[in-house]
Amino acid sequence: MKPLSPLDQIFLWMEKRQQPMHVGGLQLFSFPEDAPADYVAQLAEGLRGYRNVTSPFNRRLINRVGQLAWVDDDELDLEHHFRFEALPTPGRIRELLAFVSAEHSHHMDRQRPLWEVHLIEGLQDRQFAIYTKIHHSLVDGISAMRLAGRMLSDDPQQRNMPPIWALPPRLRKDKDESQTSLWHSVLGLLDKSGKQIGTVPAVARELLRTISEARKDPAYHSLFAAPQCVLNSGITNSRRFAAQSYSLDRIRAVCSAFGTTVNDVIMAMCAAALRSYLLSQDELPEKPLIAMVPVSLRRDDSEEGNQVGVILASLFTHLSDPAERLLRIHEGVKTQKERYAAMSSEEVINYTGLTLAPAAFNLLTGLAPKWQTFNVVISNIPGPSEPRYWNGARLEGMYPVSIAMDRLALNMTLTSYCDQVEFGLTACRRTLPSMQRMLDYLEDGLRELEAAAGLF
Amino acid sequence: MKPLSPLDQIFLWMEKRQQPMHVGGLQLFSFPEDAPADYVAQLAEGLRGYRNVTSPFNRRLINRVGQLAWVDDDELDLEHHFRFEALPTPGRIRELLAFVSAEHSHHMDRQRPLWEVHLIEGLQDRQFAIYTKIHHSLVDGISAMRLAGRMLSDDPQQRNMPPIWALPPRLRKDKDESQTSLWHSVLGLLDKSGKQIGTVPAVARELLRTISEARKDPAYHSLFAAPQCVLNSGITNSRRFAAQSYSLDRIRAVCSAFGTTVNDVIMAMCAAALRSYLLSQDELPEKPLIAMVPVSLRRDDSEEGNQVGVILASLFTHLSDPAERLLRIHEGVKTQKERYAAMSSEEVINYTGLTLAPAAFNLLTGLAPKWQTFNVVISNIPGPSEPRYWNGARLEGMYPVSIAMDRLALNMTLTSYCDQVEFGLTACRRTLPSMQRMLDYLEDGLRELEAAAGLF
Repeated sequence: MKPLSPLDQIFLWMEKRQQPMHVGGLQLFSFPEDAPADYVAQLAEGLRGYRNVTSPFNRRLINRVGQLAWVDDDELDLEHHFRFEALPTPGRIRELLAFVSAEHSHHMDRQRPLWEVHLIEGLQDRQFAIYTKIHHSLVDGISAMRLAGRMLSDDPQQRNMPPIWALPPRLRKDKDESQTSLWHSVLGLLDKSGKQIGTVPAVARELLRTISEARKDPAYHSLFAAPQCVLNSGITNSRRFAAQSYSLDRIRAVCSAFGTTVNDVIMAMCAAALRSYLLSQDELPEKPLIAMVPVSLRRDDSEEGNQVGVILASLFTHLSDPAERLLRIHEGVKTQKERYAAMSSEEVINYTGLTLAPAAFNLLTGLAPKWQTFNVVISNIPGPSEPRYWNGARLEGMYPVSIAMDRLALNMTLTSYCDQVEFGLTACRRTLPSMQRMLDYLEDGLRELEAAAGLF
Repeated sequence: MKPLSPLDQIFLWMEKRQQPMHVGGLQLFSFPEDAPADYVAQLAEGLRGYRNVTSPFNRRLINRVGQLAWVDDDELDLEHHFRFEALPTPGRIRELLAFVSAEHSHHMDRQRPLWEVHLIEGLQDRQFAIYTKIHHSLVDGISAMRLAGRMLSDDPQQRNMPPIWALPPRLRKDKDESQTSLWHSVLGLLDKSGKQIGTVPAVARELLRTISEARKDPAYHSLFAAPQCVLNSGITNSRRFAAQSYSLDRIRAVCSAFGTTVNDVIMAMCAAALRSYLLSQDELPEKPLIAMVPVSLRRDDSEEGNQVGVILASLFTHLSDPAERLLRIHEGVKTQKERYAAMSSEEVINYTGLTLAPAAFNLLTGLAPKWQTFNVVISNIPGPSEPRYWNGARLEGMYPVSIAMDRLALNMTLTSYCDQVEFGLTACRRTLPSMQRMLDYLEDGLRELEAAAGLF
């Protein structure tokens, strides 16, 4: 029996009927060259044999006198967790996304280990997919991506590779990985109060006190600049998931033309897509949208490292000129990064805690004071730059499936793989109707920047 | 805006994370003779065109100052409610049941009309299926079966038949249909208190008072005879659905041999299956299991009519001789029916209310006093005796998918169609592991009776 960390506890507290707290990943594979037509069914049969489930996939929750803890599940029913499924005709990406949208809307059974792996056949062009769903209390988004990465190999000849639930456990890495979470910054801030914080009301009270004091500081006051927007409405429990790959070469060409970073161009694409989508819904605020962007605390420009700081970046969605939008985003991000460069890591983490405190308060209590510090989350999780294989099947794309929350109805998470940037958009399907159009708007955003740079 | 009836309200109150309160139906069809291979995909395309959603499928819940009400949904998103899906290879009934088990475990989105229709391709032998899921607050089980029946025709040539959500609404039948529910007996009983009962605590308090008074009566005291059993444990939110057809001719032959009714033999099959299953789990109580069986109040032996009475029938699961078990069940049921025959309809309804009160109290409050009045629900919903078609596709079977609840972890609902008895077993997958084996045990039960009757 292992007691839950305060952070794991928070993700369970935050779970509501309309707000499941699991993260996911969608991996798209192509068949190995010599694979027979029933390749995926054979794969399913093989996977059913991996009955030795390793940590953390063997852990389930128990409630002992009001205290939640993890125990090993002695009755683990693999058929419940591993599911072989199929797409309907005609088996396009569209049907795959509809499938993931529906599955990602469903809560998991709390009396069992909180994960599911869906192996999906019926895709066109000799492809198949794996959609993995893990509760945020079991593993955070970055750790989930790392686990998914550990499942893969750079060797197309390698076989007998276990699925994610049967990987040999890594020694003593759990703790390090879970500390990458932004919630740690919030908890770290509260820890300073020196109090034991074991319940939602206690956490909320401490957050409220912290925020009230911070608001007296004029510098901090400037944080509350995000406009009210439909993105920050209440949500329902049906999700829309949309995903697409974009060419990293094209993005790099725009970077070179404007002298910006890859991340700046990605943010400008998001800004363009949000602007187009909100215009189409007649919901674009007059003031620019603010994005919360987790950033690495490493000072080199590598894509590795823990993301424990955040910047609040204006997306300049009120500007109609795409080039101007990109350059203003670039300036804004640069200024904030320079500010962070002058701070110690600990100061950055404190600042991050303060920045997130209002959102944390809203999310935990369901109350909605007008503290809108940001409108949308744009999160970039590093991915492999070389091709990956799983039992000979080439990984063609991998897309993060994240969490939509009350007052944060859209999450834009992306990762990189080989020469692609892989966007996964997760949203409340009712609050943001036809959100999948943002995939086209992201492409339009990139194209506009290419045009502005004279690249075609 | 239409306020919720007390009954609709109860089904929403009773819904918990591990206890969704929707009912369902699984219909199995064969392709029309001339149908092309992509018949189901074409059907799906046609169904997407039925965008004019009729009552009650256009109703969604709203919460106005604490009072729930139904309103028409102006933003109904048909893609959310109607889903075209596929079974994985090899597309046997086994894969179909796994699919329904998973889908039936999921809650529906309360901000939308509480129904889903899943059209399922990928079955072997030119078959397809429709799984329909409707919240009990929107329509009760019998009405759902009637609606499903209205969707069908006895004419194999008929085409352009709308799906269930686009049927022309029947005038003024809603009310009659919803009064078939057993819960009406409980509410009717409480109505006598003359109090407005608008909350769970109020209902529970009144039930408690009623039960306490009734328990002073020695005759009523005999109701609490059901043994403690694993069937009456708490449940989790994952379901197992198992379904199979059994030959009505074989059942009738056993009836003739023993001089019993069809329902007696069906109950004896259930008794045999429960005995075998519980023995295999080492969980068979020493005392016989008690089944709650809704019965028609019509005095003729027709299968038509409203089911507003219940009998509590011993299943004699402690007896190892199948013939003796059948004859004792027959006697027991006959005695209770004769008792009912001497009572007015109103007296039967009052008695039913009292019989159900302890279960209702347990279900509503989640408290668990040792009032085990029955162990399992066995419900027989009348079905059509002639073949039915939908747009030329022959209905091959129809199986009720019901509700498992805390302390009622298994529901056995059956219906009849042509020369078949169609069993649908719905259970908590964790509380009752490998429950699908009961399908074989039902068959074994029938075979034992045939052997005892010297029929082969």
